[in-house]
Amino acid sequence: MSKYDDLKKRCYEANMQLPELQLIVYTFGNVSVVDRAQNVFAIKPSGVPYAQLSPTDIVIVDFENQIIEGSLRPSSDTKTHAYLYKSWQGIESICHTHSTFAVAWSQAQRDIPILGTTHADHLITDVPCTEPMKDEDIKGDYEHMTGKQIVEYFERHDLSPTETEMILIANHGPFTWGASHEKAVYNSKILEELAHMAYLTEQINPEAKRLKDSLIQKHYERKHGKDAYYGQ
Amino acid sequence: MSKYDDLKKRCYEANMQLPELQLIVYTFGNVSVVDRAQNVFAIKPSGVPYAQLSPTDIVIVDFENQIIEGSLRPSSDTKTHAYLYKSWQGIESICHTHSTFAVAWSQAQRDIPILGTTHADHLITDVPCTEPMKDEDIKGDYEHMTGKQIVEYFERHDLSPTETEMILIANHGPFTWGASHEKAVYNSKILEELAHMAYLTEQINPEAKRLKDSLIQKHYERKHGKDAYYGQ
Amino acid sequence: MSKYDDLKKRCYEANMQLPELQLIVYTFGNVSVVDRAQNVFAIKPSGVPYAQLSPTDIVIVDFENQIIEGSLRPSSDTKTHAYLYKSWQGIESICHTHSTFAVAWSQAQRDIPILGTTHADHLITDVPCTEPMKDEDIKGDYEHMTGKQIVEYFERHDLSPTETEMILIANHGPFTWGASHEKAVYNSKILEELAHMAYLTEQINPEAKRLKDSLIQKHYERKHGKDAYYGQ
Amino acid sequence: MSKYDDLKKRCYEANMQLPELQLIVYTFGNVSVVDRAQNVFAIKPSGVPYAQLSPTDIVIVDFENQIIEGSLRPSSDTKTHAYLYKSWQGIESICHTHSTFAVAWSQAQRDIPILGTTHADHLITDVPCTEPMKDEDIKGDYEHMTGKQIVEYFERHDLSPTETEMILIANHGPFTWGASHEKAVYNSKILEELAHMAYLTEQINPEAKRLKDSLIQKHYERKHGKDAYYGQ
Repeated sequence: MSKYDDLKKRCYEANMQLPELQLIVYTFGNVSVVDRAQNVFAIKPSGVPYAQLSPTDIVIVDFENQIIEGSLRPSSDTKTHAYLYKSWQGIESICHTHSTFAVAWSQAQRDIPILGTTHADHLITDVPCTEPMKDEDIKGDYEHMTGKQIVEYFERHDLSPTETEMILIANHGPFTWGASHEKAVYNSKILEELAHMAYLTEQINPEAKRLKDSLIQKHYERKHGKDAYYGQ
Repeated sequence: MSKYDDLKKRCYEANMQLPELQLIVYTFGNVSVVDRAQNVFAIKPSGVPYAQLSPTDIVIVDFENQIIEGSLRPSSDTKTHAYLYKSWQGIESICHTHSTFAVAWSQAQRDIPILGTTHADHLITDVPCTEPMKDEDIKGDYEHMTGKQIVEYFERHDLSPTETEMILIANHGPFTWGASHEKAVYNSKILEELAHMAYLTEQINPEAKRLKDSLIQKHYERKHGKDAYYGQ
Repeated sequence: MSKYDDLKKRCYEANMQLPELQLIVYTFGNVSVVDRAQNVFAIKPSGVPYAQLSPTDIVIVDFENQIIEGSLRPSSDTKTHAYLYKSWQGIESICHTHSTFAVAWSQAQRDIPILGTTHADHLITDVPCTEPMKDEDIKGDYEHMTGKQIVEYFERHDLSPTETEMILIANHGPFTWGASHEKAVYNSKILEELAHMAYLTEQINPEAKRLKDSLIQKHYERKHGKDAYYGQ
Repeated sequence: MSKYDDLKKRCYEANMQLPELQLIVYTFGNVSVVDRAQNVFAIKPSGVPYAQLSPTDIVIVDFENQIIEGSLRPSSDTKTHAYLYKSWQGIESICHTHSTFAVAWSQAQRDIPILGTTHADHLITDVPCTEPMKDEDIKGDYEHMTGKQIVEYFERHDLSPTETEMILIANHGPFTWGASHEKAVYNSKILEELAHMAYLTEQINPEAKRLKDSLIQKHYERKHGKDAYYGQ
């Protein structure tokens, strides 16, 4: 028994969603869930196959990347998660995958343009893609710098992490987050679908235009505005 | 017990087909079924996950968008369904999805050209795609205007809703319908397949030509003409 | 009991392979199996969903398209099958699908070029695609003329139906055949895979070259030549 | 009972992974596992369907391609496996498939460029693709020459088979290998995923650039370097 049992269980369940939603092959992904009261987060151990994962394998880490509980090494991306939790109070869970279409846009080093209402139902901006990281940052504390790069990108572009809940890391892949572990994982699945649709749209019409502003506002607000009427 | 139990059950079963046919992720779709004698239709509640949906959750709505029975909020697209039922007496069920290939053509703002007999087996026109909606219509009664836009498109282009049972809404996605809930859902699946095939055809041959008229007529008539010989 | 029970059973099993191999949606395909001694063939009834199909539904037809046994209407493509059985003594079963990639090449009106050894393991020619049918043939005895078109194409291009066991009908889709019902269905699956691979190859390298003759011969002969050493 | 029972069992299990990982249709692939102490390897029999395969069907062959144990004919690619085992002491298992995206790059006769960290997590070079084989080699001892071609390619390009554990044979398909049968099969799955991602990346951005060296080094070393911190 541990006071983190519930946190570990939620983290475990979120991670187990990744193979079920076909967002990963093998161990290419990780989900973390934060406990804001304790200033710690639970994260998948590194390189453990999903079929062998159990809730007790989940590692508890604090925002300075110290292991608080757990006998396994945490995900190699742990420092990126820590940096985001520390910087952004509004997020409760982070999900990282190497899902095929999202990775393809990351490798293409392109933002995913907002082309339709499926996109606008979830975010009112393009899905941002970072610039390639500088050599000195890569050679240094790489995963920490990845977190820093994300946060600085949001500041520089005046984006809000509670409105745009996803980013592509150039040449790497997507990070998504949300107010719950269900939402963080959901955003990874949605992103993959948006990445697939945008790719096809450009193939069908290379001149396809960005969604007009009025439609962006309309769809986002029917799901997220003060007079939202989507859902229960 | 309610006099709408059978209607709700058919609506429920039609909605449950969408994940099974891989036409949706999460809650991105809805099917309605009309009762012409009662002037009401049954529709999926908004944002309820399919795994949790039960026949009693289905909402009964009239053509003025008033809830007649049900404790949940109906689909956010309800007014579009109502407008179509009111305008077109010949249709009994409507299906809306965000299926990947159909959405891509919608975002590309292109009609899906009739390129082969798989298409002609089902409709003798291109799959139409509307123009982007005007800003004032988007800001106003958006879902109502979407219905109006569909009906006016059919009138302007001299299309018959009992012959062409599908349309793409620019930047949004497909609506399909039919003389039964099985047919409405079937049309969504067929549309997705036609959208996939047409996309591939243009990739393989950018100069691919529209199907010749004689073949359009032949295939449509062997399934739907007065001397039809397809099926039992 | 009927003397055709075994023939019907094999035909039923071959047809049931189509949804299992993901070669069709709904009822978009049919397999027939011939009995050379009786000069009849068994074929799927038209438009019957696979989930409801049983061996007793299979229809027995002769080469003049007369129903010999069965209460259901045979596939609308029956006359095409009959024409091929009558013209080509060496084939025992025919399979027709609307599989996605094979249809895309048909709609593109292009032969599938032989680009690799996966292709050469099965046939030493491109997968041929017919010319669009003449208007008078479409308006006339269409399915009969489709069979005639296939046979004449093979004669005109000096192709052997026991070596090249597949063809694409322009704007329609594939027919495959073979010395057994297993082989006819197998060829439809292989064709779909070849169509997918060839499509991708041209996307990756628009200048991709046809396989060199020495490699075509080598791979075909290790599977089919007199010194074949593939298989048991 | 045979002293090769354990070797056969591992070979059987590795082969059974191929359909499960969706790397093959029908019998289009084979995995072998070597016993370095005995100078033999176990390999799949040729053309036996996976559903009928059992551990006792696995054939034991020595490096001169002599059958040591087994009543079935070994894979037609056996001589390629033998050549690689003989030339490269560091490898323990070899996997050959006709997986769709890897074959497409093979048919396109292109190396798969290293475009992202998913690739760099596994190898620091492009995935090499051989030149088309010379006619005299094809006509001669073809499968032996395929092995020779691979080994000579690695020598000529100064590649290490324990670092770059995969190659594409022009117009044919992939061979992968590794220090265990799990790793050899794993590499085939990874290769297919890399081939898919690289294809999409070039479609999304035809000017997509090769991954910068600092990022290649970083990702490879966090998994494989002396201070690796990926995995347990």
